[in-house]
Amino acid sequence: MVSAISDTVPHPFDPLSQDEIQSAIGIVKKAHGEVFFNVVSLHEPRKAEMTKWLENPAETPRPPRIADTVVIAPGGKVYDGLIDLAAGKITKWELLDGLQPIITMEELVLVEHICRKDPKVIEQCEISGIPKEDMHKVYCDPWTIGYDERHGNKIRLQQALMYYRPNVDDCQYQYPLDFCPIFDAEKQEIIAIDIPKVRRPVSKAPPINYHPAAIEKAGGYRNDLKPINITQPEGVSFKMKGRELEWQNWNFHIGFNYREGIVLNNITYNDKGTVRPIFYRLSLAEMVVPYGNPEHPHQRKHAFDLGEYGAGYMTNSLTLGCDCKGSIHYLDAQFPTRSGSIRTIKNAICIHEEDDGILFKHTDFRDESVIVTRARKLIVQQIFTAANYEYAIQQDGTIQPEIKLTGILNTYALNPDEDTQGVNAHNHQHLFCLRIDANVDGPNNTVFMADTVPSDAPVGSQENYYGNAFYAKRTKLDTTGKAATDYDGTTSRTWDICNTSKLHPYSKKPASYKLVSREVPRLLPKEGSLVWKRAGFARHSVHVTKYRDDQLWPAGRHVPQTSGEPSLGLPEWIGDGTESIEDTNVVLWHTFGVTHIPAPEDFPVMPVEPITLLLRPRNFFSNNPVMDVPPSYASTPSQVAANGAGVVNATDGMSKLAFTNGSSSSVGCCSTNGANGTNGTNGVNGY
Amino acid sequence: MVSAISDTVPHPFDPLSQDEIQSAIGIVKKAHGEVFFNVVSLHEPRKAEMTKWLENPAETPRPPRIADTVVIAPGGKVYDGLIDLAAGKITKWELLDGLQPIITMEELVLVEHICRKDPKVIEQCEISGIPKEDMHKVYCDPWTIGYDERHGNKIRLQQALMYYRPNVDDCQYQYPLDFCPIFDAEKQEIIAIDIPKVRRPVSKAPPINYHPAAIEKAGGYRNDLKPINITQPEGVSFKMKGRELEWQNWNFHIGFNYREGIVLNNITYNDKGTVRPIFYRLSLAEMVVPYGNPEHPHQRKHAFDLGEYGAGYMTNSLTLGCDCKGSIHYLDAQFPTRSGSIRTIKNAICIHEEDDGILFKHTDFRDESVIVTRARKLIVQQIFTAANYEYAIQQDGTIQPEIKLTGILNTYALNPDEDTQGVNAHNHQHLFCLRIDANVDGPNNTVFMADTVPSDAPVGSQENYYGNAFYAKRTKLDTTGKAATDYDGTTSRTWDICNTSKLHPYSKKPASYKLVSREVPRLLPKEGSLVWKRAGFARHSVHVTKYRDDQLWPAGRHVPQTSGEPSLGLPEWIGDGTESIEDTNVVLWHTFGVTHIPAPEDFPVMPVEPITLLLRPRNFFSNNPVMDVPPSYASTPSQVAANGAGVVNATDGMSKLAFTNGSSSSVGCCSTNGANGTNGTNGVNGY
Repeated sequence: MVSAISDTVPHPFDPLSQDEIQSAIGIVKKAHGEVFFNVVSLHEPRKAEMTKWLENPAETPRPPRIADTVVIAPGGKVYDGLIDLAAGKITKWELLDGLQPIITMEELVLVEHICRKDPKVIEQCEISGIPKEDMHKVYCDPWTIGYDERHGNKIRLQQALMYYRPNVDDCQYQYPLDFCPIFDAEKQEIIAIDIPKVRRPVSKAPPINYHPAAIEKAGGYRNDLKPINITQPEGVSFKMKGRELEWQNWNFHIGFNYREGIVLNNITYNDKGTVRPIFYRLSLAEMVVPYGNPEHPHQRKHAFDLGEYGAGYMTNSLTLGCDCKGSIHYLDAQFPTRSGSIRTIKNAICIHEEDDGILFKHTDFRDESVIVTRARKLIVQQIFTAANYEYAIQQDGTIQPEIKLTGILNTYALNPDEDTQGVNAHNHQHLFCLRIDANVDGPNNTVFMADTVPSDAPVGSQENYYGNAFYAKRTKLDTTGKAATDYDGTTSRTWDICNTSKLHPYSKKPASYKLVSREVPRLLPKEGSLVWKRAGFARHSVHVTKYRDDQLWPAGRHVPQTSGEPSLGLPEWIGDGTESIEDTNVVLWHTFGVTHIPAPEDFPVMPVEPITLLLRPRNFFSNNPVMDVPPSYASTPSQVAANGAGVVNATDGMSKLAFTNGSSSSVGCCSTNGANGTNGTNGVNGY
Repeated sequence: MVSAISDTVPHPFDPLSQDEIQSAIGIVKKAHGEVFFNVVSLHEPRKAEMTKWLENPAETPRPPRIADTVVIAPGGKVYDGLIDLAAGKITKWELLDGLQPIITMEELVLVEHICRKDPKVIEQCEISGIPKEDMHKVYCDPWTIGYDERHGNKIRLQQALMYYRPNVDDCQYQYPLDFCPIFDAEKQEIIAIDIPKVRRPVSKAPPINYHPAAIEKAGGYRNDLKPINITQPEGVSFKMKGRELEWQNWNFHIGFNYREGIVLNNITYNDKGTVRPIFYRLSLAEMVVPYGNPEHPHQRKHAFDLGEYGAGYMTNSLTLGCDCKGSIHYLDAQFPTRSGSIRTIKNAICIHEEDDGILFKHTDFRDESVIVTRARKLIVQQIFTAANYEYAIQQDGTIQPEIKLTGILNTYALNPDEDTQGVNAHNHQHLFCLRIDANVDGPNNTVFMADTVPSDAPVGSQENYYGNAFYAKRTKLDTTGKAATDYDGTTSRTWDICNTSKLHPYSKKPASYKLVSREVPRLLPKEGSLVWKRAGFARHSVHVTKYRDDQLWPAGRHVPQTSGEPSLGLPEWIGDGTESIEDTNVVLWHTFGVTHIPAPEDFPVMPVEPITLLLRPRNFFSNNPVMDVPPSYASTPSQVAANGAGVVNATDGMSKLAFTNGSSSSVGCCSTNGANGTNGTNGVNGY
């Protein structure tokens, strides 16, 4: 069941609608003439107002709808603005100095066009081995310049990573060019070209393509894959009310914005009738991809894909049956175009359920009495450029963000004597920052660090005679300085977001959500490096700050061309590290990811590499919250003794043996003696 | 397609058939009278013979079928034996001294029976608050004693962990008793009871049960889960020839034995017509579950579930539609009973395919040309007591062993003033040892340790001006001593099993399989502790040995009651650590797992906790081996320019929108402009 999203009053967490975006654009154009719109997005409601409204939506004033805008006016002047939509007024209009807003699609497309016509670029292409009549075969991936101290940040610049395609359908990443034009966005011209000392002409190797014609030529596709069908003939188990989702006691609002992509708001769990808050807001707030090659200009390659390009702006329009399989619900996204009209991305977010194998099982060896219950999980997902973001929500209270990296690795030229086939993919890291605005059983939380450590007492001592003693050591992170901590694999380190006012009735420990994250490489660029300065969030695995409105993006609000001096975002907010964060409204920032040393298996396209972490309830529930998930089969000792009378048998009747004629073959569910129980309430369709 | 396994000649890796087991038993009984059969299992063929046979099965002599037996004769005498089945002869019969064979089901069941009648046990139950007429409500989980220096290992002993059930269907783990009877298996009587200094009577708290009657009473099951159907109407993509499986270029034999459970033999990959070996044998060879409570007798709680109980012996009979969902193929298992007949576990192993989301995707921002391909994976799985073992095989060459822990935590009594509700679950670790008998592109391999590290050159130096330089440091592990290494999360440490004679044509790096494992806690029991001595494999994350026949089980062949002095298994084989393991036939032993600090969410049954690792090809394939997996959708720039003519569209037509009337709704697969391509060869049923 889904209710229409058209004429209803927007939920305060809803992204701006098409009408709202257009309204904001109109107001700005009227006041300031023709400007470029880099951002027109929801200015998130202030938490104090929003919390009141959430407690009593019927009677509390609804927080106003405010548009957050970033425009570039003629002369390259950048303005931050706020528009009160109901009042129809601009309430803030601030000229920025030395700050560059997020890159937009339109800006990216323009660079290639200009590059192909620029005489100096043409000259460099000729030096590389590409004749001037083939400039239509030259392509560029236009990145923000990152930060280059020779150019600074007053002028908006992009660096063009250059490639060549022998044929229009060839994979360009096998033909990188060794020079790098710098593009001035205001003048719309190439103002410089970085030329390396050692020249490397374009590769002459035949392309390794991945499109069907190439595969057919190389022997064809595999033809032995039989289809798998995933269907939900009775519909899905989740309900949507606008953008609010309800599933298996969970309730949360699905937000979306131009830079973070998916935002999960006000995540709560209905615990036997009591709605218990868990997180006020959960999102991937920034990321950085530093490359490990020290040669100029590769140090500029450390894209902040969220702050510089936008997980929302770059998100794919997902397709039923390709990107998403099963019974799928989609949410669209609307963004402004630079010139002030609307760009809609249909099916930007997909939501679906999946069977997740066994949830729990227990068998008694004495009599084979057994309970086996299958798990279901809910996935909220988007795909943007080179990453597939999934938030998997589990019945046992676990939230599992997962990122699957895929796509094409950035490449650079090599000379034939220098390794690989004229192409080199540089080592790099993918570091993501998960922002957890905590609300564990209430707004005042404290973060602890938990390490499993052996007892200090030596083997043979009275306290530890056999030497096996170990325990969980907990360290309270009570100031922002103390909370800047790193992952330690030897102690299986985890972090607990606790509500010390809510002690578990039996364990007496505080209700908590535990961050279990094992893919936590340290930042390899050194302290004091350009990346370390610009990506302060990546210096540690965990930072914790006291909540303040608008402290959302840990590398700063405007990321392109920041110098890192000072380091914007998290380092500013933490300052000298003395602020108390004990028993208060806290935000935990977790940086995780992978270090990638490329290999041939990553070419021409990288098969998905998953990175995952868990947020798990510990001492939150009175006991396992999934005991009331219907089992596939359950028999008690007394039922086994009574030859199976009364067992619950909800076997999935659609499951089949692989090599029979296809008839359902049930060998007496879950018992070796072949006893059959009565059918569960779901008849043939088990879980 | 599956061929009959009945009258054909067994594959040399096949487990002993029912006939072979009975034949061996008959031979032994004839020679040695009535004995208890703890083991009658395949004595694995010698690798030298087997390798020759695998190269040329048609003309090479087939390795003989030998039964490996372990029996207990009257007087508690333990014999290791080998039976040549074709010759009908015992070729080895060795009396052991101070070694106890694996525990069997029958031995476990007996202990509870004896305990209930023992006067001293009855007395302790009364002290605990259980009247003597209620002894039928007393249960025990009979563990091997582990090692207890007061009793040694000449006499076969078990320790009875005692529990009470107020009602026959109640969960006993909420009612642990505080004393521990010791059972003499030969005399079949209780010879001692360990009684703690501080007594803790049985809990009086009401039970938290998980069977349906209890759940119905507590409010009933969730009723909002709609079914998900997973079907393969055209059958499965894998083929079986006996126990040999073929799927997506993979080929391997699925073995199974009483202690390791699943064994994958002779794993190869057909790389465009060339069959390339990867692993000769892969299995979980041992595990240990040390508990962290130093009080007596809890130090004895460190079960070696494989060597002491057997992942084969304890494996569940899986059921279609409960444990396994979809189109499933099963393999049965046969074991001897103690008295010399046959026990069959039907459906011991299940095999099926799963859709695994997106395999790879690349979109070009310029024109939205795109390729998106979905992944399929194959799972070979078993479930035994408290763990669900899955070997997931992926199309990109990755092998992913995964363990899902579930079941009921071991509990011990607590007094009401001592925490929780009269019950305490002790901290513990689950440590598994994966045995990788390497054959990466051939039998002679070398193991390297790989760490990602920052350059030594400081920020601002010529070599590292911007401070971003980092690289992969590789350390050759050329002796067994050097190879005893530990996980380091800060360097994202991995291990590469390399064939240094097989260099990649482009990267020039050796063909390798990389062990990527991030759940690698260190052993918390200290050096010199009882666990450290008995579970030598757990001292380090990785050990590497030179291959020798019969070096299979890293805590020793007979594990119950080993003292750890000397440490059997791996420590013996490594010795002084000087043996060279460079460019030779090596076995990598990897110890991984979790440290578990229990919480209320683990009661009454623990929801699955997954532990996983990857074995990934690096520099093994010339490039990404999955480019020939049929895509769901593929369009090239020239096809997009020609309005979609020729695109490959194999959208899954069974996928549906969640909230329409159910009709298939295709919005123009994978393109924002709505262009439709021709249907792929699979018509409506895409991948």
